[in-house]
Amino acid sequence: MKTEKISEAVVRRLPVYLRFLNELNMKNVQTVSSQDLGNKLDLNPAQIRKDLAYFGEFGKKGIGYDVNYLIEKIRQILKLNQDIAVALVGAGNLGRALCNYNVYLKDNMKITAIFDDSPDKVGTSINNLQVHPMKELVGTIREEAIRIGIITVPASEAQSVADEFVRGGVEAILNFAPVIIKVPMHIRVHNADFTTDLQSLAYYLDE
Amino acid sequence: MKTEKISEAVVRRLPVYLRFLNELNMKNVQTVSSQDLGNKLDLNPAQIRKDLAYFGEFGKKGIGYDVNYLIEKIRQILKLNQDIAVALVGAGNLGRALCNYNVYLKDNMKITAIFDDSPDKVGTSINNLQVHPMKELVGTIREEAIRIGIITVPASEAQSVADEFVRGGVEAILNFAPVIIKVPMHIRVHNADFTTDLQSLAYYLDE
Repeated sequence: MKTEKISEAVVRRLPVYLRFLNELNMKNVQTVSSQDLGNKLDLNPAQIRKDLAYFGEFGKKGIGYDVNYLIEKIRQILKLNQDIAVALVGAGNLGRALCNYNVYLKDNMKITAIFDDSPDKVGTSINNLQVHPMKELVGTIREEAIRIGIITVPASEAQSVADEFVRGGVEAILNFAPVIIKVPMHIRVHNADFTTDLQSLAYYLDE
Repeated sequence: MKTEKISEAVVRRLPVYLRFLNELNMKNVQTVSSQDLGNKLDLNPAQIRKDLAYFGEFGKKGIGYDVNYLIEKIRQILKLNQDIAVALVGAGNLGRALCNYNVYLKDNMKITAIFDDSPDKVGTSINNLQVHPMKELVGTIREEAIRIGIITVPASEAQSVADEFVRGGVEAILNFAPVIIKVPMHIRVHNADFTTDLQSLAYYLDE
């Protein structure tokens, strides 16, 4: 396990940089300055230079960053040049919506298995993936070397799903249920709760 | 508009504190220490004390925080004691999923209007809210004093939806489309893109 000297805030910005760099690449733009990045992403250019400097000297003074090189470096840092299998539990509206994002994940990170215990969902297909019953979760994680689990079940069921993910041996969990789940220290959890996003946004409203 | 001396990271943690405090309140727990909060939320207790100290002296040494008082204070800080109307554009799986979260938003912040231009969605109902055509968006924002907009349309349509939200006069946007939207400086945008959540999580996987 790598030491965590890089703050989570920096790690969370890297995919945002990557997305914009990929857009530039598609337009055949070859170099980009931290100023351009800052303008596009509404971030201070000095902040961007500092973020990227954590990982090495990628930019050239007066020229900027080579787009292709920086894409490759960020992909390495985020481990997107590996195949990473992801399992999702909860085939409701949110689960279905997330499976639709699979097309955006060109980076070898894919939802490869979906689970749900509802009898009217087991056996149905979402984007060519069949929904399997929960009792197959642990076995599938092991057989398919699934490393990340996504939770899109109601709050009341989130902890028991997390426990199953842990039992199967995932390394990280993305939790969309509006509840705090407890897992062993070595497993990374990110919460993607919509209510907290919305509540933190309210802070910035005028009085 | 308030000055932004409090970092976004702190603001984004406040709803997480609030959620746990509400859980404690439901169990009739009356005081909580920063240590307890830290254990539950996997955060350093010193970090939590520092976060809360931005807003005033809420805790008592050796006793901790009064749960009810802290709930009330955080709700004030996040402006959750006001009625805040939210509009959502994009009645697909994700839009439907988010409307289901309405029940969790006990805090007077509610999705009150849904828009979509797809003929097979206009006129249908999601959780008792009727889907309206996009041409009614600007008028509805003004009539119903909608302050926050949520975007759950495909990436290609996100900017034009953002432009309409701006034209109507929202103050903040929660964007779920995997694309960077541009809005005037005085409008706050939070991106809730699932792909960046997942990619930043991969950073924490073992080699």
